[in-house]
Amino acid sequence: MDVLKVSARSNPNAVAGALAGVIREKGRAELQAIGAGAINQAVKAVAIARGLIAPSGLDLVCIPAFTDLVIAGEPRTAIRLIVEPR
Amino acid sequence: MDVLKVSARSNPNAVAGALAGVIREKGRAELQAIGAGAINQAVKAVAIARGLIAPSGLDLVCIPAFTDLVIAGEPRTAIRLIVEPR
Repeated sequence: MDVLKVSARSNPNAVAGALAGVIREKGRAELQAIGAGAINQAVKAVAIARGLIAPSGLDLVCIPAFTDLVIAGEPRTAIRLIVEPR
Repeated sequence: MDVLKVSARSNPNAVAGALAGVIREKGRAELQAIGAGAINQAVKAVAIARGLIAPSGLDLVCIPAFTDLVIAGEPRTAIRLIVEPR
């Protein structure tokens, strides 16, 4: 599954557009975010993408999950948001 | 629907427990959060609540949405997370 990495500086509208594109092509997508600012932008992107996808008759939902990563040798916990039609 | 207000200082485990209780009783619940720190805690709470509810055979999903509030006379945009079984 395509993973879209979201940062605190990501534009939610741009992430929503990318998310909608992946969902139209692959049926589902995944956002990955580390830290409160990034998670905030990711959640906003899902809310916006729901509006982009709704005219196609799809009702997007998201499933939040924790995932453990190692970044620059340090353990970090990221949030994954799996986004798919209900 | 019961609305659970989440702040940046909310304990995600405590919110998850409350969320699971409301979902078991009412079938669904709603979290409301304003600001990145609060949204972060709310998303973590949903991920934790999924694990609390999964043994009952329910697969929780969340639907993020924007909502406009007026707080102390100022317009604010909050995020609502509607949480329900798939």
